[in-house]
Amino acid sequence: MPYVNIKITREGASADQKRELIAGVTGLLQRVLGKNPATTVVTIDEVDFENWGIGGLPVLDYRAAQAAKEPPR
Amino acid sequence: MPYVNIKITREGASADQKRELIAGVTGLLQRVLGKNPATTVVTIDEVDFENWGIGGLPVLDYRAAQAAKEPPR
Amino acid sequence: MPYVNIKITREGASADQKRELIAGVTGLLQRVLGKNPATTVVTIDEVDFENWGIGGLPVLDYRAAQAAKEPPR
Amino acid sequence: MPYVNIKITREGASADQKRELIAGVTGLLQRVLGKNPATTVVTIDEVDFENWGIGGLPVLDYRAAQAAKEPPR
Amino acid sequence: MPYVNIKITREGASADQKRELIAGVTGLLQRVLGKNPATTVVTIDEVDFENWGIGGLPVLDYRAAQAAKEPPR
Amino acid sequence: MPYVNIKITREGASADQKRELIAGVTGLLQRVLGKNPATTVVTIDEVDFENWGIGGLPVLDYRAAQAAKEPPR
Repeated sequence: MPYVNIKITREGASADQKRELIAGVTGLLQRVLGKNPATTVVTIDEVDFENWGIGGLPVLDYRAAQAAKEPPR
Repeated sequence: MPYVNIKITREGASADQKRELIAGVTGLLQRVLGKNPATTVVTIDEVDFENWGIGGLPVLDYRAAQAAKEPPR
Repeated sequence: MPYVNIKITREGASADQKRELIAGVTGLLQRVLGKNPATTVVTIDEVDFENWGIGGLPVLDYRAAQAAKEPPR
Repeated sequence: MPYVNIKITREGASADQKRELIAGVTGLLQRVLGKNPATTVVTIDEVDFENWGIGGLPVLDYRAAQAAKEPPR
Repeated sequence: MPYVNIKITREGASADQKRELIAGVTGLLQRVLGKNPATTVVTIDEVDFENWGIGGLPVLDYRAAQAAKEPPR
Repeated sequence: MPYVNIKITREGASADQKRELIAGVTGLLQRVLGKNPATTVVTIDEVDFENWGIGGLPVLDYRAAQAAKEPPR
Protein backbone atom coordinates (compact mmCIF):
# COMPACT_ATOMS: atom_id res chain seq x y z
CA MET A 1 0.00 0.00 0.00
CA PRO A 2 2.65 2.49 -0.99
CA TYR A 3 2.09 6.17 -1.59
CA VAL A 4 4.11 7.91 -4.29
CA ASN A 5 4.23 11.62 -5.03
CA ILE A 6 5.79 12.81 -8.28
CA LYS A 7 6.60 16.49 -8.71
CA ILE A 8 7.36 17.79 -12.19
CA THR A 9 7.41 21.21 -13.76
CA ARG A 10 4.13 22.09 -15.45
CA GLU A 11 5.00 21.95 -19.11
CA GLY A 12 2.33 20.02 -20.88
CA ALA A 13 2.47 16.42 -19.69
CA SER A 14 -0.52 14.77 -21.38
CA ALA A 15 -3.17 12.60 -19.74
CA ASP A 16 -1.62 9.61 -21.52
CA GLN A 17 1.85 10.36 -20.19
CA LYS A 18 0.45 10.64 -16.67
CA ARG A 19 -1.34 7.35 -17.17
CA GLU A 20 2.02 5.81 -18.10
CA LEU A 21 3.67 7.27 -14.99
CA ILE A 22 0.91 5.92 -12.74
CA ALA A 23 1.02 2.46 -14.32
CA GLY A 24 4.83 2.44 -14.40
CA VAL A 25 5.39 3.38 -10.77
CA THR A 26 2.68 1.03 -9.54
CA GLY A 27 4.16 -1.83 -11.57
CA LEU A 28 7.65 -1.07 -10.33
CA LEU A 29 6.57 -1.32 -6.69
CA GLN A 30 4.80 -4.58 -7.39
CA ARG A 31 7.78 -6.06 -9.22
CA VAL A 32 10.51 -4.94 -6.81
CA LEU A 33 8.74 -5.16 -3.46
CA GLY A 34 5.63 -7.26 -4.13
CA LYS A 35 3.35 -4.34 -3.24
CA ASN A 36 -0.35 -4.75 -3.98
CA PRO A 37 -1.36 -2.44 -6.87
CA ALA A 38 -4.92 -2.27 -5.54
CA THR A 39 -3.85 -0.04 -2.65
CA THR A 40 -0.95 1.81 -4.30
CA VAL A 41 -1.71 5.52 -4.55
CA VAL A 42 0.18 7.88 -6.87
CA THR A 43 -0.24 11.65 -7.03
CA ILE A 44 1.38 13.97 -9.54
CA ASP A 45 2.05 17.63 -8.74
CA GLU A 46 2.67 19.94 -11.68
CA VAL A 47 4.63 22.92 -10.47
CA ASP A 48 4.75 26.28 -12.28
CA PHE A 49 8.18 27.27 -13.58
CA GLU A 50 8.57 30.19 -11.20
CA ASN A 51 7.83 27.89 -8.24
CA TRP A 52 10.63 25.44 -9.06
CA GLY A 53 14.21 26.21 -8.17
CA ILE A 54 17.41 24.36 -8.98
CA GLY A 55 20.98 25.57 -8.61
CA GLY A 56 19.69 28.58 -6.68
CA LEU A 57 17.66 29.83 -9.66
CA PRO A 58 14.11 29.54 -10.94
CA VAL A 59 14.16 26.69 -13.42
CA LEU A 60 13.85 28.76 -16.60
CA ASP A 61 16.81 30.92 -15.57
CA TYR A 62 18.71 27.76 -14.71
CA ARG A 63 18.03 26.27 -18.14
CA ALA A 64 19.07 29.48 -19.85
CA ALA A 65 22.31 29.54 -17.83
CA GLN A 66 23.01 25.90 -18.70
CA ALA A 67 22.36 26.56 -22.40
CA ALA A 68 24.69 29.57 -22.36
CA LYS A 69 27.47 27.37 -20.99
CA GLU A 70 27.33 24.94 -23.91
CA PRO A 71 30.08 25.56 -26.43
CA PRO A 72 28.99 26.79 -29.86
CA ARG A 73 29.12 24.17 -32.59
CA MET B 1 2.04 22.25 16.86
CA PRO B 2 1.19 19.52 14.39
CA TYR B 3 1.13 19.92 10.66
CA VAL B 4 -1.46 18.01 8.65
CA ASN B 5 -1.71 17.72 4.88
CA ILE B 6 -4.89 16.34 3.34
CA LYS B 7 -4.89 15.36 -0.33
CA ILE B 8 -8.21 14.78 -2.06
CA THR B 9 -9.33 14.64 -5.66
CA ARG B 10 -10.61 17.98 -6.92
CA GLU B 11 -14.31 17.40 -7.24
CA GLY B 12 -16.11 20.29 -5.70
CA ALA B 13 -15.43 20.27 -1.96
CA SER B 14 -17.08 23.45 -0.71
CA ALA B 15 -15.54 26.09 1.53
CA ASP B 16 -17.81 24.85 4.32
CA GLN B 17 -16.68 21.27 3.94
CA LYS B 18 -13.05 22.40 4.07
CA ARG B 19 -13.85 24.39 7.18
CA GLU B 20 -15.23 21.20 8.74
CA LEU B 21 -12.10 19.26 7.79
CA ILE B 22 -9.83 21.91 9.31
CA ALA B 23 -11.87 22.12 12.52
CA GLY B 24 -12.24 18.33 12.71
CA VAL B 25 -8.58 17.46 12.30
CA THR B 26 -7.47 20.21 14.67
CA GLY B 27 -9.97 19.04 17.29
CA LEU B 28 -8.92 15.43 16.86
CA LEU B 29 -5.27 16.26 17.56
CA GLN B 30 -6.25 18.26 20.62
CA ARG B 31 -8.51 15.52 21.96
CA VAL B 32 -6.18 12.56 21.31
CA LEU B 33 -2.77 14.09 21.92
CA GLY B 34 -3.47 17.35 23.74
CA LYS B 35 -2.02 19.39 20.87
CA ASN B 36 -2.51 23.14 20.99
CA PRO B 37 -4.96 24.23 18.26
CA ALA B 38 -3.34 27.66 18.10
CA THR B 39 -0.26 26.25 16.36
CA THR B 40 -1.89 23.38 14.44
CA VAL B 41 -1.57 23.95 10.70
CA VAL B 42 -3.70 22.10 8.14
CA THR B 43 -3.32 22.31 4.38
CA ILE B 44 -5.63 20.76 1.80
CA ASP B 45 -4.41 19.82 -1.68
CA GLU B 46 -7.06 19.30 -4.33
CA VAL B 47 -5.61 17.07 -7.03
CA ASP B 48 -6.96 16.89 -10.58
CA PHE B 49 -8.40 13.51 -11.59
CA GLU B 50 -5.69 12.78 -14.13
CA ASN B 51 -3.02 13.43 -11.48
CA TRP B 52 -4.36 10.85 -9.04
CA GLY B 53 -3.68 7.16 -9.52
CA ILE B 54 -4.97 4.14 -7.64
CA GLY B 55 -4.73 0.49 -8.61
CA GLY B 56 -2.31 1.47 -11.39
CA LEU B 57 -4.93 3.64 -13.14
CA PRO B 58 -5.96 7.28 -13.20
CA VAL B 59 -8.79 7.57 -10.71
CA LEU B 60 -11.65 7.98 -13.21
CA ASP B 61 -10.57 4.84 -15.07
CA TYR B 62 -10.30 3.08 -11.73
CA ARG B 63 -13.82 4.07 -10.75
CA ALA B 64 -15.18 2.97 -14.13
CA ALA B 65 -13.43 -0.39 -13.75
CA GLN B 66 -14.83 -0.82 -10.23
CA ALA B 67 -18.34 0.06 -11.41
CA ALA B 68 -18.08 -2.44 -14.27
CA LYS B 69 -17.22 -5.17 -11.77
CA GLU B 70 -20.41 -4.68 -9.76
CA PRO B 71 -23.02 -7.29 -10.56
CA PRO B 72 -26.17 -6.03 -12.27
CA ARG B 73 -29.16 -5.82 -9.99
CA MET C 1 -9.30 7.75 -1.74
CA PRO C 2 -7.74 10.58 0.22
CA TYR C 3 -4.18 10.62 1.50
CA VAL C 4 -3.46 12.31 4.82
CA ASN C 5 -0.06 12.98 6.37
CA ILE C 6 0.12 14.00 10.03
CA LYS C 7 3.38 15.39 11.37
CA ILE C 8 3.83 15.61 15.13
CA THR C 9 6.82 15.96 17.40
CA ARG C 10 8.16 12.63 18.62
CA GLU C 11 7.18 12.62 22.26
CA GLY C 12 5.64 9.34 23.08
CA ALA C 13 2.37 9.03 21.18
CA SER C 14 1.19 5.49 21.92
CA ALA C 15 0.02 2.90 19.42
CA ASP C 16 -3.51 3.39 20.74
CA GLN C 17 -3.37 7.14 20.22
CA LYS C 18 -2.15 6.62 16.67
CA ARG C 19 -4.99 4.17 16.11
CA GLU C 20 -7.41 6.89 17.24
CA LEU C 21 -5.85 9.42 14.89
CA ILE C 22 -6.10 7.02 11.95
CA ALA C 23 -9.71 6.10 12.73
CA GLY C 24 -10.62 9.72 13.46
CA VAL C 25 -9.23 11.24 10.28
CA THR C 26 -10.63 8.46 8.11
CA GLY C 27 -14.07 8.86 9.69
CA LEU C 28 -13.94 12.64 9.27
CA LEU C 29 -13.28 12.33 5.55
CA GLN C 30 -16.11 9.86 5.19
CA ARG C 31 -18.54 12.02 7.15
CA VAL C 32 -17.68 15.38 5.56
CA LEU C 33 -16.90 14.38 1.98
CA GLY C 34 -18.29 10.86 1.62
CA LYS C 35 -14.81 9.44 1.02
CA ASN C 36 -14.48 5.66 0.99
CA PRO C 37 -12.54 4.51 4.09
CA ALA C 38 -11.29 1.43 2.23
CA THR C 39 -8.92 3.51 0.13
CA THR C 40 -8.11 6.29 2.60
CA VAL C 41 -4.43 6.23 3.53
CA VAL C 42 -3.03 7.99 6.60
CA THR C 43 0.65 8.27 7.51
CA ILE C 44 2.05 9.73 10.72
CA ASP C 45 5.54 11.26 10.87
CA GLU C 46 7.08 11.64 14.30
CA VAL C 47 9.70 14.38 14.13
CA ASP C 48 12.56 14.74 16.61
CA PHE C 49 12.48 17.93 18.67
CA GLU C 50 15.59 19.38 17.10
CA ASN C 51 14.09 18.88 13.63
CA TRP C 52 10.95 20.90 14.37
CA GLY C 53 11.01 24.68 14.32
CA ILE C 54 8.34 27.20 15.23
CA GLY C 55 8.73 30.93 15.76
CA GLY C 56 12.25 30.70 14.34
CA LEU C 57 13.39 28.34 17.12
CA PRO C 58 13.73 24.61 17.68
CA VAL C 59 10.55 23.57 19.45
CA LEU C 60 12.03 22.99 22.92
CA ASP C 61 13.60 26.45 22.91
CA TYR C 62 10.28 27.84 21.71
CA ARG C 63 8.41 26.17 24.55
CA ALA C 64 10.91 27.43 27.09
CA ALA C 65 10.56 30.96 25.72
CA GLN C 66 6.76 30.73 25.88
CA ALA C 67 6.87 29.44 29.45
CA ALA C 68 9.20 32.27 30.48
CA LYS C 69 6.67 34.80 29.13
CA GLU C 70 3.82 33.55 31.30
CA PRO C 71 3.20 35.77 34.29
CA PRO C 72 3.97 34.26 37.70
CA ARG C 73 0.88 33.26 39.65
CA MET D 1 21.50 17.69 -2.73
CA PRO D 2 18.77 18.88 -0.41
CA TYR D 3 15.13 19.18 -1.31
CA VAL D 4 13.11 22.02 0.17
CA ASN D 5 9.36 22.56 -0.08
CA ILE D 6 7.90 25.92 0.93
CA LYS D 7 4.16 26.23 1.41
CA ILE D 8 2.64 29.70 1.57
CA THR D 9 -0.85 31.09 1.16
CA ARG D 10 -1.54 32.26 -2.38
CA GLU D 11 -1.65 36.01 -2.02
CA GLY D 12 0.40 37.51 -4.75
CA ALA D 13 4.03 36.57 -4.18
CA SER D 14 5.83 37.94 -7.23
CA ALA D 15 8.28 36.09 -9.47
CA ASP D 16 11.04 38.23 -7.97
CA GLN D 17 10.10 37.33 -4.42
CA LYS D 18 10.09 33.65 -5.33
CA ARG D 19 13.50 34.10 -6.94
CA GLU D 20 14.71 35.53 -3.63
CA LEU D 21 13.27 32.61 -1.68
CA ILE D 22 14.94 30.09 -3.99
CA ALA D 23 18.30 31.87 -3.85
CA GLY D 24 18.01 32.44 -0.10
CA VAL D 25 17.21 28.88 0.89
CA THR D 26 19.82 27.44 -1.46
CA GLY D 27 22.46 29.81 -0.08
CA LEU D 28 21.47 28.99 3.51
CA LEU D 29 21.98 25.27 2.95
CA GLN D 30 25.34 25.91 1.34
CA ARG D 31 26.49 28.21 4.13
CA VAL D 32 25.26 26.12 7.08
CA LEU D 33 25.79 22.58 5.81
CA GLY D 34 28.09 22.95 2.81
CA LYS D 35 25.40 21.60 0.47
CA ASN D 36 26.08 21.88 -3.26
CA PRO D 37 23.72 24.46 -4.82
CA ALA D 38 23.90 22.66 -8.18
CA THR D 39 21.73 19.81 -6.88
CA THR D 40 19.58 21.72 -4.38
CA VAL D 41 15.94 21.64 -5.44
CA VAL D 42 13.33 24.06 -4.06
CA THR D 43 9.60 23.95 -4.77
CA ILE D 44 7.03 26.51 -3.68
CA ASP D 45 3.37 25.61 -3.17
CA GLU D 46 0.89 28.46 -3.14
CA VAL D 47 -2.18 27.35 -1.24
CA ASP D 48 -5.62 28.96 -1.63
CA PHE D 49 -6.95 30.65 1.52
CA GLU D 50 -9.76 28.19 2.01
CA ASN D 51 -7.28 25.30 1.86
CA TRP D 52 -5.10 26.61 4.69
CA GLY D 53 -6.11 26.17 8.30
CA ILE D 54 -4.57 27.49 11.50
CA GLY D 55 -6.03 27.54 14.97
CA GLY D 56 -8.83 25.28 13.74
CA LEU D 57 -10.06 27.89 11.23
CA PRO D 58 -9.57 28.71 7.57
CA VAL D 59 -6.83 31.32 7.48
CA LEU D 60 -9.02 34.33 6.60
CA ASP D 61 -11.36 33.57 9.51
CA TYR D 62 -8.31 33.15 11.72
CA ARG D 63 -6.93 36.54 10.69
CA ALA D 64 -10.32 38.18 11.27
CA ALA D 65 -10.52 36.62 14.72
CA GLN D 66 -7.00 37.78 15.56
CA ALA D 67 -7.76 41.32 14.35
CA ALA D 68 -10.95 41.41 16.45
CA LYS D 69 -8.90 40.55 19.55
CA GLU D 70 -6.58 43.52 19.15
CA PRO D 71 -7.53 46.37 21.46
CA PRO D 72 -8.79 49.55 19.77
CA ARG D 73 -6.24 52.36 19.74
CA MET E 1 14.45 17.73 -12.69
CA PRO E 2 11.60 15.85 -11.09
CA TYR E 3 11.33 15.05 -7.41
CA VAL E 4 9.76 11.77 -6.37
CA ASN E 5 8.89 10.65 -2.85
CA ILE E 6 8.04 7.00 -2.22
CA LYS E 7 6.45 6.01 1.08
CA ILE E 8 6.37 2.34 2.03
CA THR E 9 5.88 0.47 5.26
CA ARG E 10 9.15 -0.37 6.96
CA GLU E 11 9.41 -4.10 6.51
CA GLY E 12 12.85 -4.92 5.35
CA ALA E 13 13.32 -3.46 1.88
CA SER E 14 16.98 -4.16 1.08
CA ALA E 15 19.54 -1.68 -0.24
CA ASP E 16 19.38 -3.48 -3.58
CA GLN E 17 15.62 -3.18 -3.79
CA LYS E 18 15.87 0.53 -3.04
CA ARG E 19 18.52 0.84 -5.74
CA GLU E 20 16.05 -0.75 -8.16
CA LEU E 21 13.30 1.65 -7.13
CA ILE E 22 15.57 4.66 -7.62
CA ALA E 23 16.80 3.46 -11.01
CA GLY E 24 13.31 2.41 -12.07
CA VAL E 25 11.54 5.66 -11.24
CA THR E 26 14.32 7.76 -12.72
CA GLY E 27 14.26 5.71 -15.93
CA LEU E 28 10.47 5.94 -16.12
CA LEU E 29 10.54 9.73 -15.97
CA GLN E 30 13.22 9.85 -18.64
CA ARG E 31 11.35 7.46 -20.93
CA VAL E 32 7.87 8.95 -20.53
CA LEU E 33 8.64 12.66 -20.19
CA GLY E 34 12.24 13.03 -21.35
CA LYS E 35 13.35 14.17 -17.89
CA ASN E 36 17.07 14.46 -17.29
CA PRO E 37 18.21 11.72 -14.85
CA ALA E 38 21.10 13.90 -13.67
CA THR E 39 18.74 16.18 -11.76
CA THR E 40 16.03 13.67 -10.83
CA VAL E 41 15.85 13.26 -7.06
CA VAL E 42 14.12 10.30 -5.38
CA THR E 43 13.58 9.87 -1.64
CA ILE E 44 12.17 6.81 0.08
CA ASP E 45 10.38 7.03 3.43
CA GLU E 46 10.02 3.82 5.40
CA VAL E 47 7.09 4.19 7.76
CA ASP E 48 6.61 2.10 10.91
CA PHE E 49 3.54 -0.16 10.88
CA GLU E 50 1.77 1.73 13.62
CA ASN E 51 2.22 5.00 11.69
CA TRP E 52 0.50 3.74 8.55
CA GLY E 53 -3.27 3.58 8.32
CA ILE E 54 -5.53 2.17 5.64
CA GLY E 55 -9.25 1.49 5.81
CA GLY E 56 -9.35 3.37 9.13
CA LEU E 57 -6.98 0.90 10.81
CA PRO E 58 -3.26 0.62 11.49
CA VAL E 59 -1.88 -1.49 8.66
CA LEU E 60 -1.26 -4.68 10.65
CA ASP E 61 -4.84 -4.69 11.92
CA TYR E 62 -6.01 -4.03 8.39
CA ARG E 63 -4.06 -6.98 7.05
CA ALA E 64 -5.39 -9.23 9.81
CA ALA E 65 -8.94 -8.13 9.01
CA GLN E 66 -8.40 -8.78 5.29
CA ALA E 67 -6.95 -12.23 6.00
CA ALA E 68 -9.91 -13.09 8.24
CA LYS E 69 -12.28 -12.25 5.37
CA GLU E 70 -10.72 -14.74 2.96
CA PRO E 71 -12.78 -17.88 2.65
CA PRO E 72 -11.19 -21.08 3.99
CA ARG E 73 -9.86 -23.36 1.24
CA MET F 1 2.10 31.14 8.55
CA PRO F 2 4.28 29.29 6.06
CA TYR F 3 5.27 25.68 6.37
CA VAL F 4 8.72 24.63 5.19
CA ASN F 5 10.07 21.09 4.90
CA ILE F 6 13.80 20.58 4.40
CA LYS F 7 15.06 17.16 3.36
CA ILE F 8 18.77 16.41 3.68
CA THR F 9 20.83 13.25 3.78
CA ARG F 10 21.47 12.04 7.31
CA GLU F 11 25.15 12.74 7.77
CA GLY F 12 25.65 14.41 11.07
CA ALA F 13 23.99 17.82 10.96
CA SER F 14 24.34 19.13 14.50
CA ALA F 15 21.61 20.63 16.67
CA ASP F 16 23.27 24.02 16.17
CA GLN F 17 23.24 23.71 12.41
CA LYS F 18 19.58 22.78 12.49
CA ARG F 19 18.92 25.78 14.70
CA GLU F 20 20.59 27.95 12.06
CA LEU F 21 18.47 26.43 9.31
CA ILE F 22 15.26 27.03 11.28
CA ALA F 23 16.20 30.62 12.10
CA GLY F 24 17.48 31.27 8.59
CA VAL F 25 14.43 30.03 6.71
CA THR F 26 12.03 31.74 9.11
CA GLY F 27 13.92 35.02 8.77
CA LEU F 28 14.01 34.70 4.97
CA LEU F 29 10.22 34.34 4.80
CA GLN F 30 9.77 37.33 7.06
CA ARG F 31 12.19 39.48 5.07
CA VAL F 32 10.99 38.54 1.57
CA LEU F 33 7.26 38.10 2.12
CA GLY F 34 6.55 39.70 5.48
CA LYS F 35 5.49 36.36 6.97
CA ASN F 36 4.93 36.24 10.72
CA PRO F 37 7.68 34.16 12.39
CA ALA F 38 5.33 33.24 15.24
CA THR F 39 3.34 30.89 13.00
CA THR F 40 6.11 29.76 10.63
CA VAL F 41 6.71 26.03 10.99
CA VAL F 42 9.88 24.31 9.74
CA THR F 43 10.52 20.57 9.75
CA ILE F 44 13.76 18.85 8.82
CA ASP F 45 13.84 15.28 7.49
CA GLU F 46 17.16 13.48 7.65
CA VAL F 47 17.14 10.73 5.05
CA ASP F 48 19.41 7.67 5.15
CA PHE F 49 21.89 7.42 2.27
CA GLU F 50 20.27 4.35 0.78
CA ASN F 51 16.91 6.14 0.73
CA TRP F 52 18.16 9.08 -1.33
CA GLY F 53 18.60 8.82 -5.06
CA ILE F 54 20.06 11.25 -7.57
CA GLY F 55 21.04 10.62 -11.17
CA GLY F 56 19.33 7.22 -10.95
CA LEU F 57 21.68 6.02 -8.19
CA PRO F 58 21.70 5.86 -4.40
CA VAL F 59 23.56 8.97 -3.28
CA LEU F 60 26.79 7.27 -2.17
CA ASP F 61 27.12 5.52 -5.53
CA TYR F 62 26.39 8.82 -7.22
CA ARG F 63 29.12 10.59 -5.26
CA ALA F 64 31.60 7.81 -6.04
CA ALA F 65 30.74 8.07 -9.73
CA GLN F 66 31.16 11.84 -9.67
CA ALA F 67 34.51 11.56 -7.90
CA ALA F 68 35.72 9.01 -10.45
CA LYS F 69 34.93 11.45 -13.26
CA GLU F 70 37.15 14.21 -11.89
CA PRO F 71 40.43 14.43 -13.76
CA PRO F 72 43.58 13.54 -11.79
CA ARG F 73 45.61 16.56 -10.75
